Amino acid sequence: MSTATKNLFALSPTPFTHVKLEDRFWKVRQEVNRQVTLPIQYAQCKTTGRLDAWTLKKAHPHIFWDSDVAKWIEAVAYSLAATRDARLERKVDAVIGLMAKAQAPDGYLNTHYLSTDPAKRWTNLRDNHELYCAGHLMEGAVAYYQATGKRTFLDIMARYADHIDATFGRKPGQKRGYCGHEEIELALVKLHGATGNPRHLQLARYFVDERGRQPHYFDAEAKARGDDPRKWHFKGYDYCQAHLPVRDQTEVTGHAVRAMYLYTGMADVAGATGDPTLIRALEKIWTSVHVKRLYITGGIGPSASNEGFTFEYDLPNETAYAETCAAIGLVFWNQRMLNLNGDSRYADEIERALYNGVLSGVSLDGSRFFYANPLATWPQMDRNAHEYTMATRQAWFGCACCPPNIARLIASVGQYFYSQSPNAAYIHLYAQGSASLSLGGRQVSLTQTTAFPWSGNIRIAVHPEKPFAFTLALRIPGWCRSAIIKVNGRIIRPRIVRGYAALKRIWNRGDRVELVLAMPVERIEAHPSVRMDCGSVALQRGPIVYCLEAVDNGSHLCDLILPASSPITARFEPSLLGGVTTLSGKATRRDPAGWTGRHLYQSGPTRRKTVAFKAVPYYAWDNRTPGEMQIWTRSNA
Amino acid sequence: MSTATKNLFALSPTPFTHVKLEDRFWKVRQEVNRQVTLPIQYAQCKTTGRLDAWTLKKAHPHIFWDSDVAKWIEAVAYSLAATRDARLERKVDAVIGLMAKAQAPDGYLNTHYLSTDPAKRWTNLRDNHELYCAGHLMEGAVAYYQATGKRTFLDIMARYADHIDATFGRKPGQKRGYCGHEEIELALVKLHGATGNPRHLQLARYFVDERGRQPHYFDAEAKARGDDPRKWHFKGYDYCQAHLPVRDQTEVTGHAVRAMYLYTGMADVAGATGDPTLIRALEKIWTSVHVKRLYITGGIGPSASNEGFTFEYDLPNETAYAETCAAIGLVFWNQRMLNLNGDSRYADEIERALYNGVLSGVSLDGSRFFYANPLATWPQMDRNAHEYTMATRQAWFGCACCPPNIARLIASVGQYFYSQSPNAAYIHLYAQGSASLSLGGRQVSLTQTTAFPWSGNIRIAVHPEKPFAFTLALRIPGWCRSAIIKVNGRIIRPRIVRGYAALKRIWNRGDRVELVLAMPVERIEAHPSVRMDCGSVALQRGPIVYCLEAVDNGSHLCDLILPASSPITARFEPSLLGGVTTLSGKATRRDPAGWTGRHLYQSGPTRRKTVAFKAVPYYAWDNRTPGEMQIWTRSNA
Repeated sequence: MSTATKNLFALSPTPFTHVKLEDRFWKVRQEVNRQVTLPIQYAQCKTTGRLDAWTLKKAHPHIFWDSDVAKWIEAVAYSLAATRDARLERKVDAVIGLMAKAQAPDGYLNTHYLSTDPAKRWTNLRDNHELYCAGHLMEGAVAYYQATGKRTFLDIMARYADHIDATFGRKPGQKRGYCGHEEIELALVKLHGATGNPRHLQLARYFVDERGRQPHYFDAEAKARGDDPRKWHFKGYDYCQAHLPVRDQTEVTGHAVRAMYLYTGMADVAGATGDPTLIRALEKIWTSVHVKRLYITGGIGPSASNEGFTFEYDLPNETAYAETCAAIGLVFWNQRMLNLNGDSRYADEIERALYNGVLSGVSLDGSRFFYANPLATWPQMDRNAHEYTMATRQAWFGCACCPPNIARLIASVGQYFYSQSPNAAYIHLYAQGSASLSLGGRQVSLTQTTAFPWSGNIRIAVHPEKPFAFTLALRIPGWCRSAIIKVNGRIIRPRIVRGYAALKRIWNRGDRVELVLAMPVERIEAHPSVRMDCGSVALQRGPIVYCLEAVDNGSHLCDLILPASSPITARFEPSLLGGVTTLSGKATRRDPAGWTGRHLYQSGPTRRKTVAFKAVPYYAWDNRTPGEMQIWTRSNA
Repeated sequence: MSTATKNLFALSPTPFTHVKLEDRFWKVRQEVNRQVTLPIQYAQCKTTGRLDAWTLKKAHPHIFWDSDVAKWIEAVAYSLAATRDARLERKVDAVIGLMAKAQAPDGYLNTHYLSTDPAKRWTNLRDNHELYCAGHLMEGAVAYYQATGKRTFLDIMARYADHIDATFGRKPGQKRGYCGHEEIELALVKLHGATGNPRHLQLARYFVDERGRQPHYFDAEAKARGDDPRKWHFKGYDYCQAHLPVRDQTEVTGHAVRAMYLYTGMADVAGATGDPTLIRALEKIWTSVHVKRLYITGGIGPSASNEGFTFEYDLPNETAYAETCAAIGLVFWNQRMLNLNGDSRYADEIERALYNGVLSGVSLDGSRFFYANPLATWPQMDRNAHEYTMATRQAWFGCACCPPNIARLIASVGQYFYSQSPNAAYIHLYAQGSASLSLGGRQVSLTQTTAFPWSGNIRIAVHPEKPFAFTLALRIPGWCRSAIIKVNGRIIRPRIVRGYAALKRIWNRGDRVELVLAMPVERIEAHPSVRMDCGSVALQRGPIVYCLEAVDNGSHLCDLILPASSPITARFEPSLLGGVTTLSGKATRRDPAGWTGRHLYQSGPTRRKTVAFKAVPYYAWDNRTPGEMQIWTRSNA
């Protein structure tokens, strides 16, 4: 099979190594990530035994642990690609040394099974995350190879992939299985990119194609273990998107992270193998997520019970699970969709998630993490008694998927800003910095000067290596209702193609583009079917979703009402929360004097009084005194 | 001990046997209860093995089953007291025959332990409901004795009580235990009323006094079984109100039904033994329930996880558990508080619960039951997948405490309407019908003519056996802000004592009292700390709390806004839901044309359009096409 000729990706993302963020938003986060988060996560992996597990001398390493170490290595790799750091590299090399020793002669590599019960490997794909861990290790290996040029880890994982390829498939003697937690599909496509081995891509395709077929592999596998498949804790295979063959799926179901990783893998396989049938399924599923099941933050998966999806428009705020990993997975998937067809609606969702529901996952100082990301909190709530849903960030988790996931996302965030095609340079996201794009082999450097996301004014300097004709495609964000574009000082009115202003011309070195994206404070409403948000508004300015915190507004946030038309002032506060634009104005709340404390109910209306309110970016909440928080505030519209 | 001289009850409730309800509200329900509910419940007890369990030939009767049969017998007894029915009586006598045979020589009687493992009796009071079942059997026995004069069941239970009295206590060789699920305390006070045996009252007092002391009995008992007390599923003993001695408790905690039964028993013991220290504790706890943790329906206990209480002002609507039994228990407790001191605030809560959160527990046709009583529903909610929280009434439950509980409540509801003291006749609740009160041995008959609860106009005919001076105390309900009272056609302005209009005079046969309670439609607000209800109002008229149902208003009820001051019309509709007063008026909702279905979020405000709304009594919801329902509706006040 020649995969190159069938590639369906209209665009290819400009690698983060070609993108230099020089802004006060992302660059600061990448530095904190490198200096604080990655060392902390190494220490946690060490303390908890996740690193020593690779000696195979530890009893019962947890079935997820390999993936935590893998994601940490991947995050380190991205960081090293930007800034080499010999000490960090030595730590990774030491782990890779253990991995090399741990790998079984046939290529198998999983600390849980090798330490605990090697004979039981591949007997519970439904629950035990073996292929999931393998996938994360592959992603780590590819990233580390790309960052350092060192092949050891990549070779280990190529051998492991070959073993998996020999084990799974439709040939006699092979297992027709696939993983309960998707991940290996997208990882094998990445591995294929590094190894060039067509078997690695074919194996990804096999895992995608086989999923959900009847007779059901998870049934057969459970019976082979002596289990009753009907007694599975999670009940239906929709939990792991294996209830139907993937091309027959039309709605998102089940565990949110699993779903996102599957769809990302499907898009990768579709693009790389030229299979439009997968894309048609993905488009339906995309709508079921983004038009019916998406928090305004980019968070997804409202329910803690399945860490995932429930029903259409069910988006509770206080009990929102909205796992950090799921929002990150949403970014992965939308990046693939965006590069498949260059439609800005996918970039809108990347931006929404990055600036809100992803970034909320880590504290400003890089040391603490949210697993679940509620959209409203009340300090006495039951969720605060549970490790994964606490409404204040934690240092680590028993199941620690989120911390290293956000670390690798931040370290590689540059990859979401630009894409390139033979005749176009795409700017999806705005931030001060520069990028080197390759358009059919011709180099173009783009430099953005902007205070985005706090300002919508962006100046772009275009530097082709020599003058040539191409389209500079500038995303007009979905939140922007008025954009002004100038080229070399003259206002132009370019065609808008799939949400991008298409500036097609012969570009010369030093051409200047100015983009002014109107960024007023918006009172956002949710669809009337989102019952929790009826009668309320969320404040948004540019891509930033705001929240109210008790530390600024006192408690009983629920009783505040924002008048429908009162002015709201946006002001940049350089010393607050690392420098943020805050929103302030007038609201009303019931006069507490109207309530004696002797009654719970009384005939209304109670007199209201006017009070000042102040909103801060949601991503920055819970970095001061803990207390109530809410995104959706009642309005008297 | 002489209990009579120390009795602290200011009033004694006029027994339901002396109260004749002749109205179109309660009488209809009592008839349906007798003709439909009781036979259905007998059939359920038969089909499920609850009756045959008394043969002791059934393997593993459930630990709750005795209580279900006991409550059914109690309900039948109340019904027989009003209307003898030989067929029903024969059914009960047959069960009592089995009980007599089943009773162990030492008096012990519990089908679970006698059938399954007699040697393990009294080894797990914390979890296994033995004393709870005994208590319900005692209540059943007392009621059946009072209704029929037959002593067999009463004698069985007196023997069982004597056995329990010998087993538990502070003497050497006795167990210093008490039940994890309170009930026997209040039952022993009732039994004492029938047997006159002072040991029965003393045993109730012992169970109340011993509760929550250290060293903790449940710890010792668990260790004796070889269990680790720290590994208890429900964690703290606050779950069963045994975390502190009862006099040191100041707040309601844990399982709502257990709490209500304890407080009822405490009040009974306090009143009967003359112990004001218990009453002081009860008053604090009462405030913690009624001022901070009470649904507007009289429902209590918001959480399914402990079937009980969470934290102050935590009153979620959609996920409300608000068990039918808990609202019934609230009625029991408030009845005792009311008769202890004659304050109408207790009668207000009895009325609130009876007309709303209790009555919602049974369908209008008497055949189906709610276990949990949500204040808002959305058909796709997860609660609809769980037996006890389904948002449509069910025929029966595995744990079937609620159906026979509401049956006995309805059959005996007359007992909440009147009280008597040597010099006063109290009318707490209004309904057409009559009652015979005994005031220090002097008989007074009171006859109400009224369409209450649909009208606040009540005419009362007073018929003392011969003229004498007493106070006729008429409750002015908490919801009523304007009452007019006439005696023999002349307006009077009596003193209001603890919420009662005190009409003190020499009453002659045929004296006529007219009471006009203003009953406008009220827009009720909840305290600002009830975060779920901020910005919303509940409609109430008289004691009736209203709700909106999709069958009348379409779905997306959440998006309706009631203008703060628009007129709302109350209209009696005789053919709707058994005859109810409905409320109707104008509301607004967002124009669906403003939402294309392509976006989940958009900048507001969306144009609103005016629509008609119609509200029906909450108790009558889910008797037509199932769908959304809500009590709290957004308001633009």
